[in-house]
Amino acid sequence: MQRALNVTRAESFPDWYQAVVRDADMAETSPVRGCMVIKPWGYGVWELIQSGLDQRIKATGHDNCYFPLFVPLSFLAKEAEHAEGFAKEMAVVTHHRLKTIDGKLQVDPDAKLEEPLIVRPTSETIIGDAFQRWIKSYRDLPLLVNQWANVVRWEMRTRLFLRTSEFLWQEGHTAHADKDDAMAETLRMLEVYRAFSEDVLAMPVIAGEKPENERFAGAERTFSIEAMMQDGKALQAGTSHYLGENFARAQNIRYQTDKGDLAFCHTTSWGVSTRLIGGVIMTHGDDDGLRLPPAIAPRQIVVVPMLRDKPEDAEVLAYCDALVRDLVAGSAFGAPVRAIVDKKPIRSAEKRWDWVRRGAPIIIEIGPRDAAGGQVTFMRRDQLRDADRVRSHSAAREAFVQSAPGLLAEIQTALFQEARARLMDNIRSDIQTFEALEEYFGAGEEDDEVGGAFKGWVRAPWSRPSGEALEAVVERLKRLKLTLRNAPLDQSGSTAPCLFTGAPSVEDILIGRAY
Amino acid sequence: MQRALNVTRAESFPDWYQAVVRDADMAETSPVRGCMVIKPWGYGVWELIQSGLDQRIKATGHDNCYFPLFVPLSFLAKEAEHAEGFAKEMAVVTHHRLKTIDGKLQVDPDAKLEEPLIVRPTSETIIGDAFQRWIKSYRDLPLLVNQWANVVRWEMRTRLFLRTSEFLWQEGHTAHADKDDAMAETLRMLEVYRAFSEDVLAMPVIAGEKPENERFAGAERTFSIEAMMQDGKALQAGTSHYLGENFARAQNIRYQTDKGDLAFCHTTSWGVSTRLIGGVIMTHGDDDGLRLPPAIAPRQIVVVPMLRDKPEDAEVLAYCDALVRDLVAGSAFGAPVRAIVDKKPIRSAEKRWDWVRRGAPIIIEIGPRDAAGGQVTFMRRDQLRDADRVRSHSAAREAFVQSAPGLLAEIQTALFQEARARLMDNIRSDIQTFEALEEYFGAGEEDDEVGGAFKGWVRAPWSRPSGEALEAVVERLKRLKLTLRNAPLDQSGSTAPCLFTGAPSVEDILIGRAY
Repeated sequence: MQRALNVTRAESFPDWYQAVVRDADMAETSPVRGCMVIKPWGYGVWELIQSGLDQRIKATGHDNCYFPLFVPLSFLAKEAEHAEGFAKEMAVVTHHRLKTIDGKLQVDPDAKLEEPLIVRPTSETIIGDAFQRWIKSYRDLPLLVNQWANVVRWEMRTRLFLRTSEFLWQEGHTAHADKDDAMAETLRMLEVYRAFSEDVLAMPVIAGEKPENERFAGAERTFSIEAMMQDGKALQAGTSHYLGENFARAQNIRYQTDKGDLAFCHTTSWGVSTRLIGGVIMTHGDDDGLRLPPAIAPRQIVVVPMLRDKPEDAEVLAYCDALVRDLVAGSAFGAPVRAIVDKKPIRSAEKRWDWVRRGAPIIIEIGPRDAAGGQVTFMRRDQLRDADRVRSHSAAREAFVQSAPGLLAEIQTALFQEARARLMDNIRSDIQTFEALEEYFGAGEEDDEVGGAFKGWVRAPWSRPSGEALEAVVERLKRLKLTLRNAPLDQSGSTAPCLFTGAPSVEDILIGRAY
Repeated sequence: MQRALNVTRAESFPDWYQAVVRDADMAETSPVRGCMVIKPWGYGVWELIQSGLDQRIKATGHDNCYFPLFVPLSFLAKEAEHAEGFAKEMAVVTHHRLKTIDGKLQVDPDAKLEEPLIVRPTSETIIGDAFQRWIKSYRDLPLLVNQWANVVRWEMRTRLFLRTSEFLWQEGHTAHADKDDAMAETLRMLEVYRAFSEDVLAMPVIAGEKPENERFAGAERTFSIEAMMQDGKALQAGTSHYLGENFARAQNIRYQTDKGDLAFCHTTSWGVSTRLIGGVIMTHGDDDGLRLPPAIAPRQIVVVPMLRDKPEDAEVLAYCDALVRDLVAGSAFGAPVRAIVDKKPIRSAEKRWDWVRRGAPIIIEIGPRDAAGGQVTFMRRDQLRDADRVRSHSAAREAFVQSAPGLLAEIQTALFQEARARLMDNIRSDIQTFEALEEYFGAGEEDDEVGGAFKGWVRAPWSRPSGEALEAVVERLKRLKLTLRNAPLDQSGSTAPCLFTGAPSVEDILIGRAY
């Protein structure tokens, strides 16, 4: 069977991912090590993610701000664990001028900065510095801010959207009077991420708490949403951290209580990034390319006129234009329907497959017969094929225009249901011993880069070991290329013996291979 | 008379500017040299500028993308004039890791980059590199992209919004088959900027071409919009550049023509930045603080409940909530009216003056009598005072709700008209000799930092000298602290002798002090 991509998921999931990113024209590598160029179709998806999530962040009381790109080295050193966790691979600015020396443009040795500046890998310390100035009394709390920004973490092995040296994200930072309020915020934003992932990205996730070894550097508790990719691996798609008083003590973020004494704030931070786009690709893509949930498709309906360099072309084009005019008057997901006529001067078959690869939810093809007969011939990208044949539908123009918003909603739901079923069907809860785990996943001989058999996750009883005992567990898992993902918020209540320690479990934890 | 700021424009315009930025809670300096923190009210204005301008950029056919933050040093060196113009003060990344050495976090000397990376001061070279890959044939042209990004140009003397080391902007970059198409684009985007400044920011500008000495580094022609601030100085508020084949040749951006041979593209670039916010402040602010044009006011109508810790407070609050519910159901400037009740636990008089300083266009105060009588008592921020007294208006609730969108439009227009009259009244066209110019502006003894008398601009006949002759003119002007602003697109057609050279003029040029 002819597919729109030259590699299938089964042949090589990593190669398939690269092919989708490239053939859907989402992004490309740049000549700057580890930095990507996000192309219009990829950036269009990001803009829709941004605006949808931004609304939800504002609706929960947060204001957007903008803080400096640079963090002085001394700031980063303030919170010891944080520095330890982040100080490894970062872009360091040491000079502020270039100079032509011997006819060659070079760094001016006379322009060395007194203190090196770090390109922000995250902004707890630079925003904490502002909080320390802004917060005086309990009346200033809670302080709830968010910023949309680029951040840089030097990466050696990069993969577009999933792990790049520079990426785009939002980072929320909040300060509270006490632990209860800060914990409520931490969980509120986790829920915002869960709902956004499921409702807008159609990407089902499990929200839960990360084990101690996976906590954010400097956090007391870290929560995540974890999504299952089509190769069975987990993608950590968003995190929310309760930072306790750690950053407040390191940066002197204090407030006067209503009784008049001084107390440290409890702070939180939470973020999602362009990594979500990688998650969308690996959740919904198929062997013909990307399938975009309509809520984040820059074009939800694309009309391809079937032109033949004949006089009736004008009629076809006029019909297409009128159709799009009517479609965009409709509304889906709270915004006008995004529809266009693709008038690029290339063959219409080529256009069809371009839009298939890009994942436009509905692709309409209009020929002279459709125009003359008042018909619309269309494909649903989520149900592109019937066995091997491309499946196309026909509808009367008026009926189609009427039904289009509903059809988009239906596609959104169908994509979610499909992914949700895959997630639910592939979490095994019947594996109770390490030996069984080893047998299920195999001893790690599988080559990470070529895929291997689909395994999904295991949900296992967990006694929450700490310190060295936890490290031993992590090491054992590492040999199987497995990691602890999170302990779901939604717990089974089982107290079966811990899969690792044999001690009574206090919760279930998810185990899987991961990005 | 009591004013809401502690300094007036007349006393010291620069101090007044700082006071507005601070007291309107727009932004503040950060501990990172030259970088600002944009606070929620300032960032809210920027978000409205972004979304409004973004619509216009997309409506003219441009797609948003995102390109790397870093530019390899060798890229910058490619276009000689460009490197010369920009290579001076930039943030240079030389290392990619920190390390704890002797218990102190420092730059890891073993992690030196092979090639230094520049934090983008502008992105012609990194985007040109992508263009060179993307463009193959005339069918790929024009290529029209834009990005919203942060950029860094190391600055020694900074002023919030007007000149900071890091700032936010959009930069458009386009490639065309020939000069005509590229010039049309350059002027189209200049017109987008002009219309946006006037229609949305209510900031009148003069669009025109920069003289040779003020061209962007590497450009063939540079155009700008220039706005007159309330101290008479010019603010270059946006630029649009025709880059000819300069960057295309330096980066090999070529295409196959329809005849089959290879030709260099003609490229353009154009940008506006957070500097626009500084322009808005200095165009519309008064001695009570900021006055925001309603189209970019994050809150257009603020309702202050006059609470007295008495039982009738509940009734007042309910009345305010219902009023805001009705107001936000209305629509102004193509979006729902942005109205809120300010429920902060501070005195209502304090709230009133906070919103006056922040420049909310309409401030409503509701007391028990208003609530009981179905009345609305409000102030228009653009007409705050009648002589010295604060002017407040009264209207029946229903009538006010009905009229609110119209009132916002009226305020928008009033602010524009006021600024437009100031601009028009303060461009002198009757100064024909250098001596008269010198006499008018004074010999430069005026201290830049304390303001000096309002002078505005001079529109003078100009023979367009070049090279050394132009440099001589620039030097003479410099002694008077004057600069050539632009030669307006809209020309008088006069051929009077050039004010500087005495040769027949070919156009009029604007001269003024500038930011």
